[in-house]
Amino acid sequence: MIEQIKPMDIERRSFEIITEILGERKLDPENELVIKRAIHTSADFDYADNLVFSEHAVLKGIEALKSGCDIVTDTQMAKSGINKTILAKLGGQVHCFMAEPDVAEEAKARGITRAIVSMERAAKLPKPCIFAIGNAPTALIRIREMMDAGELKPALIVGVPVGFVNVVESKELIIESAAPYIVARGRKGGSNIAAAICNAMLYQITR
Amino acid sequence: MIEQIKPMDIERRSFEIITEILGERKLDPENELVIKRAIHTSADFDYADNLVFSEHAVLKGIEALKSGCDIVTDTQMAKSGINKTILAKLGGQVHCFMAEPDVAEEAKARGITRAIVSMERAAKLPKPCIFAIGNAPTALIRIREMMDAGELKPALIVGVPVGFVNVVESKELIIESAAPYIVARGRKGGSNIAAAICNAMLYQITR
Repeated sequence: MIEQIKPMDIERRSFEIITEILGERKLDPENELVIKRAIHTSADFDYADNLVFSEHAVLKGIEALKSGCDIVTDTQMAKSGINKTILAKLGGQVHCFMAEPDVAEEAKARGITRAIVSMERAAKLPKPCIFAIGNAPTALIRIREMMDAGELKPALIVGVPVGFVNVVESKELIIESAAPYIVARGRKGGSNIAAAICNAMLYQITR
Repeated sequence: MIEQIKPMDIERRSFEIITEILGERKLDPENELVIKRAIHTSADFDYADNLVFSEHAVLKGIEALKSGCDIVTDTQMAKSGINKTILAKLGGQVHCFMAEPDVAEEAKARGITRAIVSMERAAKLPKPCIFAIGNAPTALIRIREMMDAGELKPALIVGVPVGFVNVVESKELIIESAAPYIVARGRKGGSNIAAAICNAMLYQITR
């Protein structure tokens, strides 16, 4: 027998169950809702351990969103998952340049990834941006390079690419950088986690 | 030092690493590429254990896709993640009715979820469909009800909603049904897993 329950009640009950399973484990209150939403979207409790935060990263992300910053992602999936209605009310929008034909052309001509070209496009946006990277380690590598060269100052980096090649290392480059960051250390992450982290910050503004 | 490596080489190397980590563990060759792609998209090796398959489910999914079947999803994220270029070459397309205004209206009027209304819409499509469910347990429950009533005959059910309320039970309803299924038993799953499973079948046709 499956009980009838409303969507918002399901979410509330889900967070209660996550809290119960975490048990004695205490999360930093500043980061708690981000961690729990990453678990909520994956049912993977590893995110209680692997998510690492620079000082006041979540608060900085929330302040940037309140100020109308945009979000740049490296996948259409992350773009789909981010709550664009709330973001728009705050004055922001989501950019994903990966599928634009001239990005593919430039990447091919230069022998680099589309993610690198996409981050270079994003660096030219006239607004502060949160970079939410769920797939491409090369995106994080190029972000770090542009930061080091003084060409980019992200409001926050959500560095959660998933994978087995260059992923772990690319995240460490962000952890060692001067930018505010939320990083899923290790191999895990993904577009769903990137979107969930952005939404966790958006929901703290509007709910 | 991070090595330069091409996207297709990254994917090949990633699958090699996944195979290495799986070690002595032998996967059913029919299901192997689906399981490995779910791991590839999440870096979560639990999918080697929790993915369960009805007899020849993957072969049946591949045959349906070759015959030009459509895919129905319950999230825009899964729709974004499915390789629509390959699907279109085979004669298929992806449907997600969740965001259509009249679906929301009907759901509100009837006091049910949008996912239920979306599945009812999908049941009226004039083609065989693969149902790829990454989020809503109510979608799986309604699919089972319509199957039992003789109103729906899915080509394959990819039943991988993620979550903490009604999710485990809804998946068991599909495992106990007469339909071909690929199900992530337990709480885990998600739109990324739903898309990865569809893509694993699509890539076996075209690569």
